[in-house]
Amino acid sequence: MNMLIRLGSLTSLILILLFSAANGQSRKEIRVPDILGYQTLKCDFHMHTVFSDGDVWPTVRVEEAWTEGLDVIAITDHIEYRPHSVDMEADLNRPYEVAKPLADQLGIVLIRGAEITRNMPPGHLNAIFIKNANLLEREDWWEACVEAREQGAFVFWSHPGWKEQQPDTTIWWPEHTRLMNAGILKGIEIYNHKEYYPEAVRWAQEKNLVILGNSDVHAPSTQEYSEGKFSRPITLVFAMDKTESAIKTALVDNRTAVLFNDTLIAERRFLTPIFIAAIQIKTKKLNLIDQDIKYLQIYNNSDIPFKLHQRQPSVGFSCPEEIELPANRTVSVELTGISEEVEQMPVLKMFYEATNLITKRGEKLPVNIDIPNK
Amino acid sequence: MNMLIRLGSLTSLILILLFSAANGQSRKEIRVPDILGYQTLKCDFHMHTVFSDGDVWPTVRVEEAWTEGLDVIAITDHIEYRPHSVDMEADLNRPYEVAKPLADQLGIVLIRGAEITRNMPPGHLNAIFIKNANLLEREDWWEACVEAREQGAFVFWSHPGWKEQQPDTTIWWPEHTRLMNAGILKGIEIYNHKEYYPEAVRWAQEKNLVILGNSDVHAPSTQEYSEGKFSRPITLVFAMDKTESAIKTALVDNRTAVLFNDTLIAERRFLTPIFIAAIQIKTKKLNLIDQDIKYLQIYNNSDIPFKLHQRQPSVGFSCPEEIELPANRTVSVELTGISEEVEQMPVLKMFYEATNLITKRGEKLPVNIDIPNK
Amino acid sequence: MNMLIRLGSLTSLILILLFSAANGQSRKEIRVPDILGYQTLKCDFHMHTVFSDGDVWPTVRVEEAWTEGLDVIAITDHIEYRPHSVDMEADLNRPYEVAKPLADQLGIVLIRGAEITRNMPPGHLNAIFIKNANLLEREDWWEACVEAREQGAFVFWSHPGWKEQQPDTTIWWPEHTRLMNAGILKGIEIYNHKEYYPEAVRWAQEKNLVILGNSDVHAPSTQEYSEGKFSRPITLVFAMDKTESAIKTALVDNRTAVLFNDTLIAERRFLTPIFIAAIQIKTKKLNLIDQDIKYLQIYNNSDIPFKLHQRQPSVGFSCPEEIELPANRTVSVELTGISEEVEQMPVLKMFYEATNLITKRGEKLPVNIDIPNK
Amino acid sequence: MNMLIRLGSLTSLILILLFSAANGQSRKEIRVPDILGYQTLKCDFHMHTVFSDGDVWPTVRVEEAWTEGLDVIAITDHIEYRPHSVDMEADLNRPYEVAKPLADQLGIVLIRGAEITRNMPPGHLNAIFIKNANLLEREDWWEACVEAREQGAFVFWSHPGWKEQQPDTTIWWPEHTRLMNAGILKGIEIYNHKEYYPEAVRWAQEKNLVILGNSDVHAPSTQEYSEGKFSRPITLVFAMDKTESAIKTALVDNRTAVLFNDTLIAERRFLTPIFIAAIQIKTKKLNLIDQDIKYLQIYNNSDIPFKLHQRQPSVGFSCPEEIELPANRTVSVELTGISEEVEQMPVLKMFYEATNLITKRGEKLPVNIDIPNK
Repeated sequence: MNMLIRLGSLTSLILILLFSAANGQSRKEIRVPDILGYQTLKCDFHMHTVFSDGDVWPTVRVEEAWTEGLDVIAITDHIEYRPHSVDMEADLNRPYEVAKPLADQLGIVLIRGAEITRNMPPGHLNAIFIKNANLLEREDWWEACVEAREQGAFVFWSHPGWKEQQPDTTIWWPEHTRLMNAGILKGIEIYNHKEYYPEAVRWAQEKNLVILGNSDVHAPSTQEYSEGKFSRPITLVFAMDKTESAIKTALVDNRTAVLFNDTLIAERRFLTPIFIAAIQIKTKKLNLIDQDIKYLQIYNNSDIPFKLHQRQPSVGFSCPEEIELPANRTVSVELTGISEEVEQMPVLKMFYEATNLITKRGEKLPVNIDIPNK
Repeated sequence: MNMLIRLGSLTSLILILLFSAANGQSRKEIRVPDILGYQTLKCDFHMHTVFSDGDVWPTVRVEEAWTEGLDVIAITDHIEYRPHSVDMEADLNRPYEVAKPLADQLGIVLIRGAEITRNMPPGHLNAIFIKNANLLEREDWWEACVEAREQGAFVFWSHPGWKEQQPDTTIWWPEHTRLMNAGILKGIEIYNHKEYYPEAVRWAQEKNLVILGNSDVHAPSTQEYSEGKFSRPITLVFAMDKTESAIKTALVDNRTAVLFNDTLIAERRFLTPIFIAAIQIKTKKLNLIDQDIKYLQIYNNSDIPFKLHQRQPSVGFSCPEEIELPANRTVSVELTGISEEVEQMPVLKMFYEATNLITKRGEKLPVNIDIPNK
Repeated sequence: MNMLIRLGSLTSLILILLFSAANGQSRKEIRVPDILGYQTLKCDFHMHTVFSDGDVWPTVRVEEAWTEGLDVIAITDHIEYRPHSVDMEADLNRPYEVAKPLADQLGIVLIRGAEITRNMPPGHLNAIFIKNANLLEREDWWEACVEAREQGAFVFWSHPGWKEQQPDTTIWWPEHTRLMNAGILKGIEIYNHKEYYPEAVRWAQEKNLVILGNSDVHAPSTQEYSEGKFSRPITLVFAMDKTESAIKTALVDNRTAVLFNDTLIAERRFLTPIFIAAIQIKTKKLNLIDQDIKYLQIYNNSDIPFKLHQRQPSVGFSCPEEIELPANRTVSVELTGISEEVEQMPVLKMFYEATNLITKRGEKLPVNIDIPNK
Repeated sequence: MNMLIRLGSLTSLILILLFSAANGQSRKEIRVPDILGYQTLKCDFHMHTVFSDGDVWPTVRVEEAWTEGLDVIAITDHIEYRPHSVDMEADLNRPYEVAKPLADQLGIVLIRGAEITRNMPPGHLNAIFIKNANLLEREDWWEACVEAREQGAFVFWSHPGWKEQQPDTTIWWPEHTRLMNAGILKGIEIYNHKEYYPEAVRWAQEKNLVILGNSDVHAPSTQEYSEGKFSRPITLVFAMDKTESAIKTALVDNRTAVLFNDTLIAERRFLTPIFIAAIQIKTKKLNLIDQDIKYLQIYNNSDIPFKLHQRQPSVGFSCPEEIELPANRTVSVELTGISEEVEQMPVLKMFYEATNLITKRGEKLPVNIDIPNK
């Protein structure tokens, strides 16, 4: 029964109905710490609407982003594939225009984008920060890509290991090298929807590509991720502020991380400060002595759980081989003094690796935990 | 990345992706017992898509229905209000046509419908079981209604107490009497979206109208009902089988109930058998004696909780003033013998009223519970 | 503030406070079908209280059992290990006596039991259906076991693979053979608390031992199973009725199954009827034709999910390699006609194995699903 | 099967089993901000164990406290009511002694306490910070209270409105005046278990008593609060640090608040800084102009939801009559410019009262929200 309100008033009034405190709607913030002087923005640069083969009106993508704690999204409808064209007009600038007023209202940064949708090679390429999606509709894929570059786009390869296009193995084609050499291809999805591509991480490291993890969501997001086995992937962007230009600068400067199903992948320079900022030792002084047991309380003040595996023994005491630090929880860790020297140590050092924090080199992040003792 | 699959194959293949066991999707059945030889069908006869002012593609309404345990839906886009017309074609038969193949696949009965959307009077009228929605587009509302009748429609008044149209009070207009007299108006929503209209129940009783409770959902349903304060309303239809014709017959014969937020409203002839079929006395023989306490176990094998208030004392024993029977749970009820005669009684009788089962007369349903004693 | 009530009234009145409908307490029934004319009773034959090294008063074990849907429990405090003896009296018949009135009230069958707690061999042995726990306190373990037999006990080996007692491997000792030969040892836990012992299943098959799966719970059960990774294990007993004698008969006759973390282990004669009774084909006639796709709806009306893996191809059509049937859900399964003969087949046959239904031989249960077609 | 570990090792080793990261146990911190230079400690000063009429071993109270985010607890078993005395020794110092090692391990401050349990008047009185519970066992209640004072106890009246003792109305007796005048009675529970006593708030204001809200838990806490309608009440203590002496000082200085079911009661000097510290305006500059609508984002970074009701109109713009700020969520609030002067205002002022933040005077807390505009 929304109609009369909609008829009789501003478009913006429609949005109020669904997204104001009065209506019971609220946003769940995602707790990942800001690091290195940057804001840690939660982004999703790949999603669809009814304007190509998605199932929702563009405003729904903004509502979902706000509710689920995202800061930045790009709607990237397919240029070459529009199965709803019997019922819908063909203007691919419309999804952005339709969604923009609500994005402004809710403080979501909306990036103009589109998906150049070709057979392999080069497969699907997302172009974001474009100016006019309609101009990307070209017979020749290379021309479409050059047009994107002309518009100042940041272009990344979408779902490089998608089985429909790469059924047997995941291959880097000469066309991708050509796109890189032409200054067009700058990023690559290492995670798409519910699928992880380890080869893409390796390529990103070798070729200095920006890593991204996006939902590529077609149905309502609550439906696609409802079964709880998978969480919506997020590209974390470490940006000077929450503006379109700062986000673009951060992407070009390779300041991203990818979070999916409790795994975080990024360069070591980002992973280490995130871990350090997220955990907090709640025990003041342990005063561990030989042959005694003490308990250390560690609080993980983030939405990322950390799974730690001991990588080398500590001096003077023993500690667990495995420690799990659930998101937003405190755990109690048992330490046992095994030599008299522990009683003189001002700081106890524990040496772990975080098995769910993976560097761009494909390695588990080494983390050291220092505990005040005396 | 659904595209290539969609390009290279049948439309039906698209649907597989989202709604097969392989994809983790499943349907939660709604437990309400079949009664009186009828199937108890769970229905929603009022919802919108991008073809009028809704936010989703028509197939999403079918997916939601299947997942949420509905058996029957009608998509009822506004005839006169299509704010997406800049981007979308105007054919109002399309929502049905687009959704039908998936409905067939998933066993959802899809009823063709539309919402005749006028200022008050007569306000908004939903016409279901129509043949051609486009023919309902008329300058004059009366002609639209006559056309609906010509097509064999079942017409009901939507959200009669909607504040935008009835700001001060809820009024029955002469136009509604005229519609009834012409054999057009046959039903009335007593619940719409998150709003209840007690006056509509009174009118339904007085004028022998069929009661309905529908979602009128515009956004994805998981979004509209996400905050948990409200549940999606359901029209229960007691039908000979799950076919379009049996459903229409059941509606015309006034065999409906409305379920919203754990309240069930219907004629007493339906409420009583639902309660009886839903509960189960798990205690075999109580053997209650004077001055003793015994515990009775009652299992509620349905998704409707029952809230019971004692309406008159029992003979020979005392029992609680209030009993709550949560959905799908067993509770233990305390009975105390208060006279010697209880020891000879083969059956103990308890007299309650169900405060959340409301008859069309607006009364709480009286329920008697018999307990085997000796 | 329970005190004055407790002071001024019957002991039974205390119990009312916590476990009556008035207080908001309710019982979640566990949906596993009755089979072969038996009732499927949900049992836990191993748990502790403050009378040995547990953390709760005996009545708590009854409350937990009722709330969590169990029908039968045995409290089995350690005979030889009572770390609370500084504060508590030593009478090991008390846990039963303290818990019995509440068990009667709530309809829980309480079996008298105790845990004979020795070093390996023979390790820990649970004796249930005993008459006097105190008489099991003997210097010599063999005498304790003979005393249990004299009392008519059913004795089973608890956690045979417990690392504290069998650190390197799980061994069957001569002492266990001796116990079997003497008609004392009749059962074995194949699952205890959060641990599974596949060797014990093998032994049970070879030696015709009764399999059991018990919680061995020490803390409040909601605390021990709160993290959600493990569910409380259950011994299913297929008994003629819910009485102590029928349960004992069923145990002696080897009519049990063990349910833990969505895995069910039992003889094939029990597994097959459980699967058949739990699932329901909701599609009436499929009418599958060559080169066509149809969707089959399967409802799992139980609390056990079923995971199916195709073990041989079907004739005339193809179906998914994997099917997951979540508990209490309906799924939609895709079938494709691949030859013309399918159009003539009255019934379509699908051949799977249930990977989480394991026979006592250690094999996945083969299951056939017949679908009405013409 | 905890036994052998327990037999062969330190008592502290037992605790490891249940409460270390390795075992999956974790603590949920309660987010309430520190204020005014104090730490906001989460406390429960009233609970029972098997040593009086509770259902759990004393260590369970520590485990629950740690898991549920409490910092401080007092076990207060009844002096005069010990229904388990058939089975248990009578030493009332034991609950503290038994629980203390685990409390130290987990960083929970355990306060020694007891409940002086008498008929009304004076009813039940909790004495905390005592030295020897056994000495409180006296024929005469006055002598017991004097003994508590001698031991340096902080004494508060428990559940003053408990119907068993005050069936018709809640009365302040001369005995309570006498206890206050003697410097014994210093606090009063305004909330106990699941019950609220508004009269007690009034008395606390009139007589300068310290307000407390405690669980008085007898069963496992997860069982008593499982139905979700009630949350475990908490006494917030604003203390210089998390030590027993600082907590006692804070109590004597009347620095407490009571949190129950999303209602917070305290002196205004505490409520206002909690609200201010908890909310965060996420909109940088609103730039509201006449006849325009803008959206303000407010983040509630605490576990307390806030319910706001407008108490006077704003100058230059309109805002919602009701705003709900759910715990740990951001909401979007609609503001409409209604005069040209709004365009020049550097700060917009909104005037609300928090309907769930109640002062000791029984008034809703007035809160002002300032929004940067230009």
